[in-house]
Amino acid sequence: MKKINILSALFVGLCLLLGCKEDLNTSKTTNASSNGYPSLILTKSSLDQIKKGLGNTPLYDASFAKVRSQVDAALELGIDVPVPKDLAGGYTHTQHKFNYDIAHKAGMLYQITSEDAYLDYVRDMLLAYAEMYPTLDRHPEERSYARGKIFWQCLNDANWLVYMSQAYDCIRTVISEKDRETLDTKLFKPFAEFLSKETPQFFNRIHNHSTWGNVAVGLAGLVLEDDQLLQIALYGLPSDGLTADMADNDGGLIKQEGQKAGFYANLDEPFSPDGYYTEGPYYQRYAMYPFLIFAQALETKKPELKIFEYNDGVLIKAVNALLNLTDENGAFYPLNDGQKGMSYRTPSLVSAIDIAYYFGSKDPQLLSIASLQEAVQLDITGFTVAQAIKNGEMKDFRKESIILSDGANGDQGGLAIIHANHVNGNITALMKNAAHGLSHGHFDKLSYSLYKDNKEVLQDYGLVRYVNVSQKNGGGYLRENTTWAKQTIAHNTVVQDGISHYQGSFKQSSKHHPEITSVSIGDTPLQFVAAVDDTAYPDTALQRALLLVNIGEDSAPFLLDIFKIKAKGTHQYDLPIYYHGQIMQADDGLSLNNSLSPLGSKNGYQHIWKEGVAKPGTSSSQFTWFDQKQFYTRTALLDTEDVLIYGRLGANDPDYNLRRDPVVIHRKKTTGNALFASVIEPHGRYNYATEKASDAFSALDDIKRINAPLGYLALKLLLKDGGIQIVIISDNAFAKATADRSPSSKRVIGKENINKETNQKHSVELEGKIYNWTGDFTLQTNN
Amino acid sequence: MKKINILSALFVGLCLLLGCKEDLNTSKTTNASSNGYPSLILTKSSLDQIKKGLGNTPLYDASFAKVRSQVDAALELGIDVPVPKDLAGGYTHTQHKFNYDIAHKAGMLYQITSEDAYLDYVRDMLLAYAEMYPTLDRHPEERSYARGKIFWQCLNDANWLVYMSQAYDCIRTVISEKDRETLDTKLFKPFAEFLSKETPQFFNRIHNHSTWGNVAVGLAGLVLEDDQLLQIALYGLPSDGLTADMADNDGGLIKQEGQKAGFYANLDEPFSPDGYYTEGPYYQRYAMYPFLIFAQALETKKPELKIFEYNDGVLIKAVNALLNLTDENGAFYPLNDGQKGMSYRTPSLVSAIDIAYYFGSKDPQLLSIASLQEAVQLDITGFTVAQAIKNGEMKDFRKESIILSDGANGDQGGLAIIHANHVNGNITALMKNAAHGLSHGHFDKLSYSLYKDNKEVLQDYGLVRYVNVSQKNGGGYLRENTTWAKQTIAHNTVVQDGISHYQGSFKQSSKHHPEITSVSIGDTPLQFVAAVDDTAYPDTALQRALLLVNIGEDSAPFLLDIFKIKAKGTHQYDLPIYYHGQIMQADDGLSLNNSLSPLGSKNGYQHIWKEGVAKPGTSSSQFTWFDQKQFYTRTALLDTEDVLIYGRLGANDPDYNLRRDPVVIHRKKTTGNALFASVIEPHGRYNYATEKASDAFSALDDIKRINAPLGYLALKLLLKDGGIQIVIISDNAFAKATADRSPSSKRVIGKENINKETNQKHSVELEGKIYNWTGDFTLQTNN
Repeated sequence: MKKINILSALFVGLCLLLGCKEDLNTSKTTNASSNGYPSLILTKSSLDQIKKGLGNTPLYDASFAKVRSQVDAALELGIDVPVPKDLAGGYTHTQHKFNYDIAHKAGMLYQITSEDAYLDYVRDMLLAYAEMYPTLDRHPEERSYARGKIFWQCLNDANWLVYMSQAYDCIRTVISEKDRETLDTKLFKPFAEFLSKETPQFFNRIHNHSTWGNVAVGLAGLVLEDDQLLQIALYGLPSDGLTADMADNDGGLIKQEGQKAGFYANLDEPFSPDGYYTEGPYYQRYAMYPFLIFAQALETKKPELKIFEYNDGVLIKAVNALLNLTDENGAFYPLNDGQKGMSYRTPSLVSAIDIAYYFGSKDPQLLSIASLQEAVQLDITGFTVAQAIKNGEMKDFRKESIILSDGANGDQGGLAIIHANHVNGNITALMKNAAHGLSHGHFDKLSYSLYKDNKEVLQDYGLVRYVNVSQKNGGGYLRENTTWAKQTIAHNTVVQDGISHYQGSFKQSSKHHPEITSVSIGDTPLQFVAAVDDTAYPDTALQRALLLVNIGEDSAPFLLDIFKIKAKGTHQYDLPIYYHGQIMQADDGLSLNNSLSPLGSKNGYQHIWKEGVAKPGTSSSQFTWFDQKQFYTRTALLDTEDVLIYGRLGANDPDYNLRRDPVVIHRKKTTGNALFASVIEPHGRYNYATEKASDAFSALDDIKRINAPLGYLALKLLLKDGGIQIVIISDNAFAKATADRSPSSKRVIGKENINKETNQKHSVELEGKIYNWTGDFTLQTNN
Repeated sequence: MKKINILSALFVGLCLLLGCKEDLNTSKTTNASSNGYPSLILTKSSLDQIKKGLGNTPLYDASFAKVRSQVDAALELGIDVPVPKDLAGGYTHTQHKFNYDIAHKAGMLYQITSEDAYLDYVRDMLLAYAEMYPTLDRHPEERSYARGKIFWQCLNDANWLVYMSQAYDCIRTVISEKDRETLDTKLFKPFAEFLSKETPQFFNRIHNHSTWGNVAVGLAGLVLEDDQLLQIALYGLPSDGLTADMADNDGGLIKQEGQKAGFYANLDEPFSPDGYYTEGPYYQRYAMYPFLIFAQALETKKPELKIFEYNDGVLIKAVNALLNLTDENGAFYPLNDGQKGMSYRTPSLVSAIDIAYYFGSKDPQLLSIASLQEAVQLDITGFTVAQAIKNGEMKDFRKESIILSDGANGDQGGLAIIHANHVNGNITALMKNAAHGLSHGHFDKLSYSLYKDNKEVLQDYGLVRYVNVSQKNGGGYLRENTTWAKQTIAHNTVVQDGISHYQGSFKQSSKHHPEITSVSIGDTPLQFVAAVDDTAYPDTALQRALLLVNIGEDSAPFLLDIFKIKAKGTHQYDLPIYYHGQIMQADDGLSLNNSLSPLGSKNGYQHIWKEGVAKPGTSSSQFTWFDQKQFYTRTALLDTEDVLIYGRLGANDPDYNLRRDPVVIHRKKTTGNALFASVIEPHGRYNYATEKASDAFSALDDIKRINAPLGYLALKLLLKDGGIQIVIISDNAFAKATADRSPSSKRVIGKENINKETNQKHSVELEGKIYNWTGDFTLQTNN
């Protein structure tokens, strides 16, 4: 094998040198015929282009060489198609994943190089599957709501079919009639029917699992030219016998009343018009591959569907949305069940970038992401990206403040991502005012996380899972994902009476969503987002506004966080602050405990060790912490009885599944309405080489509330340099859509129309001085 | 000011362009005279060379430009010499530090550029000090055992004089007779006498404080050409009135019986013949500047002293030792009171590298460090370094396994640094078998720390201090430095009966040291170091051997840790393992607590929360953890009653001064001798982009002890692949020096003579098989 490859590589090399491209095609003799070309992802014309550029297109060549060396190594090992037995991480699971990955690549290599060894490998492997498949019952492991045959869950079987359909496409027209007949009827057709008709609870959902299922069946349908398969892939099974309110093994709903199914439905429902995927970026990243590879195949084979124009080009918008949901390291924000560290460097996003570039507007910013990925897919999209990079067309990917609406119609709240760029570093606030996010959602209405440069300042915990680490429940979700990560107290938002939003009911939470009520973001010193939720707790309205202040080179940017609660009766409110690092100066009156007990017994509180409590007994308090060379201070307005609970994760965690992260919980007990107002301020630096600490103290001396007329909240920020800043927020900022402030005037899409605060003029007298402004808020310096 | 500088810069630039160097000199008209040159660090001939190369020596030019822009900015601010009042971090403290830093640089700039603005600045500032100095009493803050006048402690006053003497040298021969008289008699002479005669408890010690004091007075003496000052700088005060056993405010001894003093004494005593400084690298880094800058001045002005040849060239060796005491990030190992993160990038090491290069053997490896420092000092040493880099002479700094002896005669134990290089990453074990380390030492005999690539695997905690962070006790040492960081339980070594070594007595610990008894290190698959200590606990001998195994590309390197205790009676032994990260799989039988209490009440145990206990009840146990994409496993031999205590730092820490780091403490209770034997094994990887875990499990299945003849310890390592490794260690490895194994044959210096195990041949029968080998240990694969 190795010898043949070296010789053929030499031959290809020589041919490239001598320009004998035609000879390459004719050298593919015995099996080639006039219809010897694939038709899904690779085609005759694209192959012609690729072969011409091969050897002279650095990023493509590098990707090609890497794939080839990987496949050649696999060919040395020979074909192994074991009887399915193991869970994720086990031998048979890993081997079948390996098989579809290599077969997919070998199929492409065959078309690019015309080397029979790749053809033989793919054909022989598929024939081995065709022999085994009819003998298989469902997988012996019974954990999944939708057990596969090759794997323990249909999801993995669908992965198999997505890749294997492409592999088959690369060889189907060159193998013998008999083999084709065998593979069509004994493997691909029954495989596709198993995933669809025989497993409707998997196939007919709105879920990333079903997307994989739909696409698997759709690609198989395109390869087999079986229109019936294609139709159910696009529109779902016409009848599925599923009852409403069935749940999967993660607790996710399988079917809701009147729900559509199939590829189009999975494109309609979870994606907002801005391309935000309601499960969050971690799952969007996972779903992008099937969405886009199927779209590419449809565009090639069924161009009349104009799939890339569907829903105003939502597939391309989705790639852009996803890139906007990454931090400075390129890692996705860990919203909902997201594993931290997953980034646009993941191989599954290589095709997304290439396809979005090729079928989109040839956005040169995408080239810089492709360059960071250090790979392209081996088809015309990847080739075109590599050529554009070679031609110097690449531009940096620039992130602007943005609102990404949620919901199929963009009317179920959304995310606000606000960036402040400053000479001393960039701050990003990510506010989550979105819908629940299907089975991977968390109970975290109006929560936010904060970033400074490439560091988390106030974190979202993410999920409790070590994906593919066998020691941790075989790499699956851990119980603390439910008991901790999904609970409200695990997020930077308010908890009423120690109970999670919607009492932790997925069904209830799925019916509601917050509303973004005021937005003023962009390249401006004051960026403002307000949102409300009045369904998370009975008879309670939650209103939060974030004001990101970046008013000059000389003052560090800071975030003002206003959380108003409108309720009746007496309640306890907890607002946690999930900082990182070491406390430099705690709130006044902190007393730490000599022994530690859990902070509560349920709703996530059972996982927090109560280290101590501060009762400042004053009208404000500060604590300063230090993490990775940077100081931070939270300055908060207090009611006299407010306390600050210093805690740490890890209680009731018998398997050490949780990180031992710290938290400060601002707790108040109030009758009627309540207010949390605080400033979060990154400041100064520490240099370990010079041991110099600069600006280790907050620039803020105090925060005070000022009496303001009805309809306004007024705060006074007293700076240490004697400066005073007055912030006034109109209650209008939290007014839900009405005739006057219609949904359409408040709805926000993409980067356009993002300054939607009302143009109302305000004039307010505070402490004897008149303040005039236009819009929902103002910040005025008052020295 | 700005205008003048731009013009003069243009002028210099033009001159450089036109080659009119002579004009540059003559342009320094009014004040220049034939003896207008300095004589300490800069000289006429070196200035001539520098001026010739200026503008054509990139690293020097960059350093020059940076210094110039910094000084020009300071000149804009004008001179500010406030009456001393504040502690470290406060205004007057910071201003006086700023003053000597800028004056020092301005003096050099004057000599290089001949611009009068720099001259005027230095002269006027010094005159302002001369006016204030006679009026000053000791500093109002009373915290120091040796209060300064300008600063709260004499150490800072000495810093001032070190830099200001150099600044004065740059202008002394060009200012007026009257000004010179004023500065000589009103400022420098009384300043030097204050630091010496008037503060003998500061000046006449063996301590880095005194080094600064000696050098300050010495440099002043050289500038003033005052031989009396130079003599006391070199040899200390002839009579000081100090009583033995006085202590400073850190608890350090001030004077021991018969102790010498002065620069030579501070060079003789703390430095070993290998250049290891007994306080550890963090303080060595701090002391290097005065040692080397004074040596340079002496070499220039008193070449007859041949200071760089003193003690077999120990000053240059010290720089090499220091560089070998850095991890892959360039950070110093945090031995004793060392703040993590301090690295060879610190500005104070720039001069050390330049001086060691220039006055040493022009070692091209030093150039790569200078290049990482991105700066050189502005004298001939820095200029020569920059030229050598420009000429392409730079080589990578290569770290080899090394023993650094401790003690003035190299006979007080020492450090062993063992590196194993492997395709999957490098492992470094650092074993500390050194003397106490003066007032900054820890009670950590035979402890070690472990590194994988640029990551800590098993950490040394370092100090409890946030240097220069005002919120934390003004940046000074925190109480937990004594109650935690210095205690034995805070280190990876054995604690007997919950009591620190030497019962935590600095005086006792300072009298003793371990002995390194066997060494076989270098470029070899098996590296071995053994050491013993029989003074830390009464009637108890502690014996530890580390075997670093790196036997091929296919097997990951691992560390075998053998800790034998020879004692009588029944004792409890604790061996802590300070890992980082998340537990993937705990020891068998781990039961976590529902509430947390401190593990003990004193000796550091009061700071550890007891999270739970594992009682495997078996003859071995494993735990696996994960940190920064890497898995690790500890596999340990157990006695049936052994327990593993899972703990976390942070109990009894009212000010959050401690990090919340995790620990597993292996505890046994034994009558008579005891043995800890364990394997620490970095393995596998986790890739967040592909979510693939490779080799997440240890390669080791079990560890067993085998019956061996008297005089030998034998272990069997059973690998998961069926392989078996037999390790046999002769008791000879722990034999202290005797006539047969004389001190000289066992003493180890530098990189030479590092294979000092005896050549004795051994033949041992184990389980019916004969094992033959030469030396103190063997590892044999036995499949």
